[in-house]
Amino acid sequence: MRKRNEEPTVESAEYDPLTQPRFGSPQDVQSAIIELKSIFKDVQTDPEVILPYGFSENSYHQSAPHSVVVSVHSTEDVVKIVNIARKYRIPLTVFAGGTSLEGHFGGYKSGSICIDMSGMDKILEIHQDDSDLVCQAGARWEDINHTLEEQGIPLFFPLDPGPGAAIGGMIATGCSGTNAVKYGTAKGEWFLNLTVVLPNGEVIKTRRRAHKSSAGFDITKIFIGAEGTLGIVTEATLKLAPLVPTRVAVAQFKDVEHAVSAVQEILHSPSNMNIQCVELIDDNMIKAINDSGEIPRKFAVKDSLFIKIQGSETAIAEAAKIVKKIVDKHGASGWDFGSSDEGAKALWHARKVCLWSSIASVPGSRAWTTDVCVPPSKLPELVRETKEDMRQSNVLGTIVGHVGDGNFHAILLFRSDEELENVRGAVHRLVERALRMDGTCTGEHGVGLGKKEYLVEELGPGTVEVMKTIKRAVDPLGLLNPGKLYPDEDTRWKKK
Amino acid sequence: MRKRNEEPTVESAEYDPLTQPRFGSPQDVQSAIIELKSIFKDVQTDPEVILPYGFSENSYHQSAPHSVVVSVHSTEDVVKIVNIARKYRIPLTVFAGGTSLEGHFGGYKSGSICIDMSGMDKILEIHQDDSDLVCQAGARWEDINHTLEEQGIPLFFPLDPGPGAAIGGMIATGCSGTNAVKYGTAKGEWFLNLTVVLPNGEVIKTRRRAHKSSAGFDITKIFIGAEGTLGIVTEATLKLAPLVPTRVAVAQFKDVEHAVSAVQEILHSPSNMNIQCVELIDDNMIKAINDSGEIPRKFAVKDSLFIKIQGSETAIAEAAKIVKKIVDKHGASGWDFGSSDEGAKALWHARKVCLWSSIASVPGSRAWTTDVCVPPSKLPELVRETKEDMRQSNVLGTIVGHVGDGNFHAILLFRSDEELENVRGAVHRLVERALRMDGTCTGEHGVGLGKKEYLVEELGPGTVEVMKTIKRAVDPLGLLNPGKLYPDEDTRWKKK
Repeated sequence: MRKRNEEPTVESAEYDPLTQPRFGSPQDVQSAIIELKSIFKDVQTDPEVILPYGFSENSYHQSAPHSVVVSVHSTEDVVKIVNIARKYRIPLTVFAGGTSLEGHFGGYKSGSICIDMSGMDKILEIHQDDSDLVCQAGARWEDINHTLEEQGIPLFFPLDPGPGAAIGGMIATGCSGTNAVKYGTAKGEWFLNLTVVLPNGEVIKTRRRAHKSSAGFDITKIFIGAEGTLGIVTEATLKLAPLVPTRVAVAQFKDVEHAVSAVQEILHSPSNMNIQCVELIDDNMIKAINDSGEIPRKFAVKDSLFIKIQGSETAIAEAAKIVKKIVDKHGASGWDFGSSDEGAKALWHARKVCLWSSIASVPGSRAWTTDVCVPPSKLPELVRETKEDMRQSNVLGTIVGHVGDGNFHAILLFRSDEELENVRGAVHRLVERALRMDGTCTGEHGVGLGKKEYLVEELGPGTVEVMKTIKRAVDPLGLLNPGKLYPDEDTRWKKK
Repeated sequence: MRKRNEEPTVESAEYDPLTQPRFGSPQDVQSAIIELKSIFKDVQTDPEVILPYGFSENSYHQSAPHSVVVSVHSTEDVVKIVNIARKYRIPLTVFAGGTSLEGHFGGYKSGSICIDMSGMDKILEIHQDDSDLVCQAGARWEDINHTLEEQGIPLFFPLDPGPGAAIGGMIATGCSGTNAVKYGTAKGEWFLNLTVVLPNGEVIKTRRRAHKSSAGFDITKIFIGAEGTLGIVTEATLKLAPLVPTRVAVAQFKDVEHAVSAVQEILHSPSNMNIQCVELIDDNMIKAINDSGEIPRKFAVKDSLFIKIQGSETAIAEAAKIVKKIVDKHGASGWDFGSSDEGAKALWHARKVCLWSSIASVPGSRAWTTDVCVPPSKLPELVRETKEDMRQSNVLGTIVGHVGDGNFHAILLFRSDEELENVRGAVHRLVERALRMDGTCTGEHGVGLGKKEYLVEELGPGTVEVMKTIKRAVDPLGLLNPGKLYPDEDTRWKKK
C-alpha cells in the first residue's frame, strides 16, 4: 500500500474513513474556500445560489447543503480541487445533470465542496468508423444523440435514463433505461474508457479504445455504480450503436399477469432481436396519461405494453405480426401499431409523459419515484402484491416497468408530511418484497442515501465488505461523496 | 482495513505481497500436503500425474510445476484448501478446462497447491422463464449448451471461447469468442452472480438473480479478468440468450482492406441485428483448410469473411441479400450461402478447423496462438503490417480475426527452438503494433505470464496501481495465483 506524506492511514486501528472520517473543521472549510477563490473564477458560496447543487426536489432523504460550488472546465481543474480538498480534508461531491433520485449529490454536514461538472459538456472526438466517441462527463446523453443526428451520423448512444442525465451521473449510478432489454446497461460494454481523477490527485485512463480487452480486470467497472465515491470521472469513451428504424406497438391486457406472460414469449420469438424495449404501464398510469391532456387521444384504461420494434421495414412488419399473434394468444384486447415514424413517435409520447401525468393526476401532489428489479418471472407477483399494498395502505400512485428485464418503477404521490411517511413505508415494503424474490433494491436509480440500508441484506456482509475494502484502499481519507452508497453497519471481517 | 490474526499486513513497509511475497518454506509445503491428505481423498503429488495441471502445451512461458493437486467437489472443499494455504502461506492456483494460452495455470517456484475444479461441472438450476442458469465453475460452455439442447430448452450461453473451456476460466480471463460482435464478452452482462471464496476463506455471492442492478459498483466485475488472483469462483449464474436459427455466408476478397471495409458497412446496415459474427480468415489459412482434408470442398485461396446471420427465415433471407449487395460493392469475388441448417454447419466447419489445419500445414510444427485487439478501423493496417512483418522475419503462420470487433488472432508456427524465438519476437512486435494503434495486448486470451510486461504501457502506471491496490487489499498475503497478471514494475504512488 502506498504511503502518503503525513496523511492518516487506514491502518491505524481507531481510524476508518467510512465510519470515523476525520474531516476538516469549519475553519478548514473556510481556508479551502479562500484557496479555491484564488484559483477559480466561478466559486459560489451564496446559500441560495448553491442550494440546488446539494438538494434534489425528487429525493426525500435528509442531506446537508454544500459549503461551496466550483465550476470546472477541464480535468486539470478537477485535479486542483481534489488536491485542495485533500489538503484541508474537505468532502467532495460532483454535480452534473442533477437528475438522480436517491440523494446522490447531497452535501456533507461538516462542510463539502461541490464540483459543478455541467460546463464540461463537450464531445471531444467522434470516431464514426469505430462507432465510438469521446466526451466530457458533463455531456448529456440526449445532447450527444442530437449532435450525432444533426451531423448525419447514423449512430446513437443507447443508454436512456431520465431526461437531462449527464454521462458522469450515468456512470456513477450504473444507469440504464427503457432500451436495456436490447442494449443492456451502463454496467455492460458501452463505456470503453474513462478518464478519472483519483482521490490522490492522479489522473488515470482506465482502458484504451479497443472494443474489447482481456488485459486484466476492467478498472472501468469499479467506477460504474460507485456513485462518485472512488474517483471523479471527467471524460468517457462511449461505444455507439447503429441507428435503425423504430416503430411502436401498444397492446392492452386484462391484467399484468397476461401482459407479462406475453412479454416472455415475445422475447423468445425468432424476432427477439428486433425488440428494442417493452414497457409495462399500469391501468392507473393509462388513466393519468388520458387525463393529462398531453396526448390527443385516449387509451382504454387497462394494463398495457408499449413495445419498440426495430429493424428493416420487412423485419419490422414481420416482427409486428409475430408480436400481434403472441399478444392475441395472451388475451390482448387492444392493439395499436405506429407503422410510420410519426405514428411511432406519437405512441411513444404517451410513455414519455408518464411522470408528469402521474403528478398531475393528484392535484397538489409531489412524487416519490422508486425502482427495484426482480428476475423477470417474478414481476407479475411483485406488481400484484405492490398494487394490493398500495390499496390497503391508501397510497396513490402509478406503476411503469421496464418489463423485459424485471425492472419495476413506482411513482408514489403525496400531498402532506403524513402522506409522505405513508409513501416511505410503501417504498420500504416494496424493496423488502423485491429482495424476497431474489431481486435488487434498485434496478437503475442507484443507492445514494435512500437504499444503503438494504445493501447488507441484498448482497451479504462479505460482498459489502469487499466494496468497503476497495473504497478504503482507493480513497483512504474517505473524501469522495461520503455518506452515500456504503451501509453504516460494521461488516469488517473478524479475525480468523 | 480488517486486521488479521498474526498475519503480516501489507502496511509494513518492507512487505508487499506482489513484489516481496513471504511464502511458506519447502517444509511448510510438505505440512500443507499432509494436512490436505488428511482431509481429501484425491490428493495427487506424483510429478508425472500433476505435470499437466501446471503446464500447458499451448503456452511458451516459463513456469514451475505445482507441488500438489487436489480435486474438489464443493465450495466448502475450496474453503478448506484456502484455509490450509493461508495457514502455511502456500500459493494457490485453480485448474479447470486447461485451455488458456498465456500460462495462467502454471505453478509457483517455491511450491503451490493446484485446485482441480474440473469435477465441479454440474448445472445446479435452470430457470427457463428467467433465461438464466446456475452452474459450478468447472462446467464447460459446450456441455452447458448441449444440455440445454437435449432438454429442449431454446436458450444458449453465447460466450464461445476455445473448445473445452470451463466457466471458471472464462470468467478468469474475461473471455469472448466469435459471437462477441452480437453478444459482447464476459465483461458484459452474462454473469449475473458469482459464488466466490475470498483469500480469507469467506464465501460471498456477488449479486442476486435480477438481470440488472444499480446497487453499487458490481463486485462480480472485479473477478472477471482477474485470472484467479482475487478470489476463487466456485459457482456462477449465467444469463442465457434465445436460440435463433442461424445461417452462414462466405465472401472472398482481393485483400483484407476490401474485406474489412465491407464489414463496417454490414455492421451498420438495417440488418445489423441479424449479424451474429463476422470472421476474417486470411489466404494462408484458407490454403491450410483446403489442404487439411477436413472439409469436402476447396475454397479459392483468398482473404475471406465467414458471416453468421441469424433470425427468422424472412429476416435471414433479407439480411443475406443486403450482405451480398455490400460485399459485391466491395469487390467480393466469391459468395457461398448455406441456406439450410446443414449447409450452414458445413460452411462453419471450415472455420472450426482453423487451428489444426494451420498446424498440419507445416509438418512437425507447433503453434503459438496469440491475440490483440484494436479499434475496428485500424484492423486492415494491423493485418497488412503483421503479414509484412511475418514475410520479412520468415515466420510461418495464419491469421484469423473476429473482425467485427477488431480482435485479431495469429497462429504462428515453429519447428525448432530457433524458430520459437523468431515467433516470440513476432508476437512482441504484434503487441507493440496494436498498442500504437490505441489497442490492447489481448482481446480475449488474457494476460497470464505472457502479456504482463505490456500492461503498464497499455494502461499507464496509475491504472495498473489501482489494480494492484485492489489485489493487495483483497489478498494481502498474495496467495492467489502469484506471478500472473500484475506487471513486475513498481508503480506505487509516490508521496504527494
